[in-house]
Amino acid sequence: MKINANFRALKESYLFSTVGAKFTAYQKAHPEKRVIKLSIGDVTRPLAPVVVSAMERAAREMGDAATFRGYGPDATCYAYEPLLEAVRARYARRGIALGSHEIFISDGAKSDLSNLLDLFSAENTVLVPDPVYPVYVDTNIMAGRRILYAAAVRENGFLPLPDAKVHADIVYICSPNNPTGAAYDRAGLQAWVDYAVREDAVILYDAAYEAFIEGGLPHSIFEIEGARECAIEICSFSKTAGFTGIRCGYTVIPDSLKREGVQLCKMFARRQSTKFNGVSYITQMGAAAAFSEEGERQILENIAYYKQNAAKIGAMLDAHGIYYTGGKHSPYIWMQCPKGMTSWEFFDALLERACVVGTPGSGFGKNGEGYFRITAFATKENTAEACRRMGDFLDSL
Amino acid sequence: MKINANFRALKESYLFSTVGAKFTAYQKAHPEKRVIKLSIGDVTRPLAPVVVSAMERAAREMGDAATFRGYGPDATCYAYEPLLEAVRARYARRGIALGSHEIFISDGAKSDLSNLLDLFSAENTVLVPDPVYPVYVDTNIMAGRRILYAAAVRENGFLPLPDAKVHADIVYICSPNNPTGAAYDRAGLQAWVDYAVREDAVILYDAAYEAFIEGGLPHSIFEIEGARECAIEICSFSKTAGFTGIRCGYTVIPDSLKREGVQLCKMFARRQSTKFNGVSYITQMGAAAAFSEEGERQILENIAYYKQNAAKIGAMLDAHGIYYTGGKHSPYIWMQCPKGMTSWEFFDALLERACVVGTPGSGFGKNGEGYFRITAFATKENTAEACRRMGDFLDSL
Repeated sequence: MKINANFRALKESYLFSTVGAKFTAYQKAHPEKRVIKLSIGDVTRPLAPVVVSAMERAAREMGDAATFRGYGPDATCYAYEPLLEAVRARYARRGIALGSHEIFISDGAKSDLSNLLDLFSAENTVLVPDPVYPVYVDTNIMAGRRILYAAAVRENGFLPLPDAKVHADIVYICSPNNPTGAAYDRAGLQAWVDYAVREDAVILYDAAYEAFIEGGLPHSIFEIEGARECAIEICSFSKTAGFTGIRCGYTVIPDSLKREGVQLCKMFARRQSTKFNGVSYITQMGAAAAFSEEGERQILENIAYYKQNAAKIGAMLDAHGIYYTGGKHSPYIWMQCPKGMTSWEFFDALLERACVVGTPGSGFGKNGEGYFRITAFATKENTAEACRRMGDFLDSL
Repeated sequence: MKINANFRALKESYLFSTVGAKFTAYQKAHPEKRVIKLSIGDVTRPLAPVVVSAMERAAREMGDAATFRGYGPDATCYAYEPLLEAVRARYARRGIALGSHEIFISDGAKSDLSNLLDLFSAENTVLVPDPVYPVYVDTNIMAGRRILYAAAVRENGFLPLPDAKVHADIVYICSPNNPTGAAYDRAGLQAWVDYAVREDAVILYDAAYEAFIEGGLPHSIFEIEGARECAIEICSFSKTAGFTGIRCGYTVIPDSLKREGVQLCKMFARRQSTKFNGVSYITQMGAAAAFSEEGERQILENIAYYKQNAAKIGAMLDAHGIYYTGGKHSPYIWMQCPKGMTSWEFFDALLERACVVGTPGSGFGKNGEGYFRITAFATKENTAEACRRMGDFLDSL
């Protein structure tokens, strides 16, 4: 018996545990202080009323022999038609026509980001940005793939473009980005699609934060010419509809995406029918309701709430002349630490002098050093108070 | 870009699609006939009332800012305490003490059966019974592992014992078995545990059907001495509580299970925190309710219902002197085809002359030839009618 030796190459993920430990130690030493957490990537607004009603109704259906449902439909990898139709309609509103066989309903983007890797050889080379959402790196370390990094730095607005001298087989793009909040425009995405087509690479396009995009920026990689031949898009209800505790996402694999003559959507259908049994009927009905006309109106209210938080944080940083990305098309604000502080120096100072917790950028990769991630997911009241405290702290430097 | 070449070694799973196609063709040719399906491995009884109430309540909590929940707790791989406690209590009733860190809540046994394979090297040799639940085979083909088969035949009651001359690293045991319904006794499981300890192998023990066990047979591999050093147990709410459409299971990895000096429960926790984001809060609350005192009473009523169906089918076969396994500790009846018929000959004859559909045993492996799987999951009325028709058909041979 040999265990998977690739696990030995994983780093312990100290970032969030260290953040947690420092917070706990501070709170213990200063029980009278009220610390505000702007570190969490989790939502706080409750589910939309139409979603709750749909899930209650679905739960009751499951308790009645006449309307009980077991395994979901085989033919669609266990997806129910109302949810597939809702996803198709959402894409259609952006001019993208999808067949049901191109849509896979999952228990979330994180699951699908790893499940998709089953389709690819362990010999492929992976390209990720630095700083990066650690899941892209760790899932590929577990499979033993070689990983290259594209530098995301202030000079490129934290939006790296392809380097023609570097070959990669699998390219990760997260736009709007976690952790930097930066979002690609059409030209940037076109450059990546052209690169992928040229290199025979596949783009894994993480669109988990697309609902935060405003104005003319593309919401989907499939708005870009050529993407149907080189890209897979991974979407989530987590940040779009507050489903972090409900677990639902969807992945789009166009039927024209082939490698070595094989349709990747067919491979993934085989993978899912073998290794997965679908998403709860109750969850699927809730997700379908979130994308109904009334549902879209209700979930946009929550997104507007978080956007107001982001705008407030952005205005405070602008007032202090601090460089940042994100906050506009994203729930994340990626700020440069003041006075040349390292990420952890700023973390410590902000905790001790303003009782505010964020996430040190260096935890996301070496190019994150000197940066700091703040999220817009706290309550309005806590965000306002945190901005006041941060402003006073920045004034005092 | 290279795709995962192991996918090319997968066989198309013709079994259930061929069964479906034959059923559809027959129904089209004979629209006046009412065909009864005893082929499905899916439940038909509605969810227990306590489960429905718990899920409705949880859905409402998610719609209120004061009780909304996002991501589940990190420390337990996103499992909520009431469900962990319910699983611990269920094991404790059989004298098995488990720590929370030894229990992993999943979206079902099928998912965990594949997710667990991430822990092991692709160089390991796998041992599965023949006939076999195809998922054990296909998931390992996708990873490129060598697969050996242990013959499950009438001579060993479809319960193969280890062959000391054969080395394997990963051993699959499903008891009560799908498709044969045969269940190991204590001595049989002890032989496998002793083998695994001797060979440094890990047993993946699929206990999805344990709730159907009666009398003194072991419900858990951890009732067997030495199992905590060599076994992982995969359990499911699907057949226990009718959760096929809800998706929840649990996997137990004892902290004393180590290979190459590494605790497999720690490896799996790292796997899950990287590749998974937990099970819906609503689902977890429903599952916890299923294992409450009142919940256990209600889910046992459904199991008793299916058992009565199984007993009826068994009595009909007994009356015709037909050999079968299962039906007693299992929702599956694995019958020998009469008059030396092949599995597909019997399928065709039963469909045409009795309007009953089952599953040809040859679809589960070469030792399944000449056998036929019938399930007890249909309604009481349909099962009674199917038994009457099958009895008449067997009389006519």
